[in-house]
Amino acid sequence: MIKIYDLPTAQNTILKRRGLLQRAWPPRLLEALQATFGKPLTPPEAVARILDSVRTEGDAALRRWTRTLDRVELDDFRVPPAQFSRALESLPPTLRAALETAAARVRAFHEKQPLPSWEADGLGQRFSPIQRVGIYVPGGSAPLPSSLLMSVIPAQVAGVERIVVCTPPNPHPAILAAAAICGIDEVYQLGGAQAIAALAFGTETVPRVDKIVGAGNLFVTLAKQQVFGTVGLDGLAGPTETMIIADSTANPAWVAADLLAQAEHDPLASAILLTPDRLLAEAVQAAVTDQTARLSRREIIAAALEANGGIVLVPDLATAARVADDYAAEHLCLTVADPRALMAQINNAGGFFLGEHSYEVLGDYVAGPSHVMPTGGTARFASPLNVLDFVKINSIVALDRETARTLSAVAAEIARTETLTAHAAAAEFRLERTP
Amino acid sequence: MIKIYDLPTAQNTILKRRGLLQRAWPPRLLEALQATFGKPLTPPEAVARILDSVRTEGDAALRRWTRTLDRVELDDFRVPPAQFSRALESLPPTLRAALETAAARVRAFHEKQPLPSWEADGLGQRFSPIQRVGIYVPGGSAPLPSSLLMSVIPAQVAGVERIVVCTPPNPHPAILAAAAICGIDEVYQLGGAQAIAALAFGTETVPRVDKIVGAGNLFVTLAKQQVFGTVGLDGLAGPTETMIIADSTANPAWVAADLLAQAEHDPLASAILLTPDRLLAEAVQAAVTDQTARLSRREIIAAALEANGGIVLVPDLATAARVADDYAAEHLCLTVADPRALMAQINNAGGFFLGEHSYEVLGDYVAGPSHVMPTGGTARFASPLNVLDFVKINSIVALDRETARTLSAVAAEIARTETLTAHAAAAEFRLERTP
Repeated sequence: MIKIYDLPTAQNTILKRRGLLQRAWPPRLLEALQATFGKPLTPPEAVARILDSVRTEGDAALRRWTRTLDRVELDDFRVPPAQFSRALESLPPTLRAALETAAARVRAFHEKQPLPSWEADGLGQRFSPIQRVGIYVPGGSAPLPSSLLMSVIPAQVAGVERIVVCTPPNPHPAILAAAAICGIDEVYQLGGAQAIAALAFGTETVPRVDKIVGAGNLFVTLAKQQVFGTVGLDGLAGPTETMIIADSTANPAWVAADLLAQAEHDPLASAILLTPDRLLAEAVQAAVTDQTARLSRREIIAAALEANGGIVLVPDLATAARVADDYAAEHLCLTVADPRALMAQINNAGGFFLGEHSYEVLGDYVAGPSHVMPTGGTARFASPLNVLDFVKINSIVALDRETARTLSAVAAEIARTETLTAHAAAAEFRLERTP
Repeated sequence: MIKIYDLPTAQNTILKRRGLLQRAWPPRLLEALQATFGKPLTPPEAVARILDSVRTEGDAALRRWTRTLDRVELDDFRVPPAQFSRALESLPPTLRAALETAAARVRAFHEKQPLPSWEADGLGQRFSPIQRVGIYVPGGSAPLPSSLLMSVIPAQVAGVERIVVCTPPNPHPAILAAAAICGIDEVYQLGGAQAIAALAFGTETVPRVDKIVGAGNLFVTLAKQQVFGTVGLDGLAGPTETMIIADSTANPAWVAADLLAQAEHDPLASAILLTPDRLLAEAVQAAVTDQTARLSRREIIAAALEANGGIVLVPDLATAARVADDYAAEHLCLTVADPRALMAQINNAGGFFLGEHSYEVLGDYVAGPSHVMPTGGTARFASPLNVLDFVKINSIVALDRETARTLSAVAAEIARTETLTAHAAAAEFRLERTP
């Protein structure tokens, strides 16, 4: 069910990073596009058409794509405000309490993040909220109220004035209830590339936003790539991934459960254990087989573990740290005797989960940090969604006259080297005359 | 030379934002591409070919494109280390002193920026430097040692281990001297899309980096768009732009000089004055004509002012603030009696320059903040280059056993709603058993 690899083999297979969008397109997808568009189009070409039509035709194009792609006929995309309180009231009380606890912890976490505006000696940086943000909440195979909480709350903490959510048609009541728990009610039933187009360009009913965040399917990702530069983005999301480093102190049943929780997300999800302990590896392998039989999503799990899952035997924990640093996992769980010492050796990961009590599922729902984290190795340069994603910095230059005069001579000197004589002239005005 | 507009006319012309990459391609550019590639290609298609060839052929492709596009034959792209100290020694002493002053001020500014790692109650955020960064320094019509300082120094302050610069072949000695002043010496003579490809994918001689920053020409921008998601980016840069809001207290000659300094960058540069004062408008108009005659780059200035420059009469400063907020200028200069009060009304701008002594040219060279700022209206969501661009955040989850147990019940409840039974199982393990 889950294979055990030696390190060189793993490095040529499950640990190898491929570009997010460099995969070959599945033939079934290409056939579906041919049927929809009436000509052979690659997914990026199909997305470019959807974007163009929404930019030029607005709501009419949104209605058409929603009919064609989602097979839903909608006159009005906006979810009526009355539905939110109804959804909240219809939640089982235990679920409502759980979502409220999660929301409160996510809010408390992000409220601790400092936004250090500063000013000194006539210079400074002012942090201020982005004004309009669009959040994409995927529909997919499972309703994900947690995805809404994990994106909306950091934006609210940042002080974003207008938060707009897009989610595929007929959203699960739990998603609307999550919106109600956050206190927002601007939700449009739009999915896929057409949702990204609506947020990036605006239509008669959907406002153009300044930044779009949130993960989605291939079409959402391709659409985000094509609007990069027009609108702010949080990055491109690939399949979710967990790496666990465990030593002989780990509980194999728990490690197996954590790998399986990851694998059930998606047939492309990646769940990898690195361990120097062969006995642990074999015990986890047995526990995976044993536990899978009882799980409802076992087909997804089997596909994910076959393609991108595995147990990798490493010579020691220092090697595991180097492998993890190169892999730059979205979630990195350190189930070892001294997780702090191991963390200190690793730069690249979205979230660190230290010790077997801080397992990843807590992070998915309730620990506090956003579960929207960088995938596909982008943790080398990207961060989990956080309050800084919803603000921008303004540089401030407010020098006194004397400092400005002194610096004008410096500026004029460099400007002349750069052959920018109008720059030099603007500086020399400040040097030569007294206003 | 510079026109005076009423507000409605300006809003339909010079104040209108077009997408960065939605312009029609100039016929001369398309002809040049046809000649180079032997078939009709759009610029994005040409860039896709360059990227693909560098990814698959490495240095051989870099040599070929450098020969074809830059008409330079290079065996070795890396600038020999000995050239840096030679370049520094050959600088005129006044220029060397000016660049050293600029470097010191830029460093001091960025060293004031806090990177607030924190940890509390078993949760936290760790800021750590991105490990390998590529910086593109354009060649273009003027050598820009300042661009190198303004990008490299924030990366150094962040603690980036390896900083790699690409700049078109045969760089001006002032650029190498600027590198020496910063204390770096890994510079490759590579320009255009091929430089971005080398940094994004790596070749035999150029290291693959985690993030690429810096502005360049159209091909650089298109290449950055196409590698988005593969490598971190600072955003896409369009032509530079300055907006000045001035009232009757402004010195018209200085305002004119500041507009001209902006206009000399590029025929596509934008230099716009908003003022409620018709007398000031007319005096600035006259001063622009008067001063331009003495400037070496007057043809570029004339083209820029014709296409994207102008003086816009507004009813009052509050209206000017609203217009500026919508425009989201790269540089926003407030030459008014109370610039602080006006700044408080405006959210969107890269840098604020407050008062006539804090004019933009100081920001270009020596004030302290990086002069790499968001253009094209992207200041709605993007920030000037700063230390945060060179770090990433790791979320940390390190809960104690009791907190984890309490939260496990919450996680299990939400997981069941999301039909993620393996998630629920991982949580229930922590509830049911005692290790």
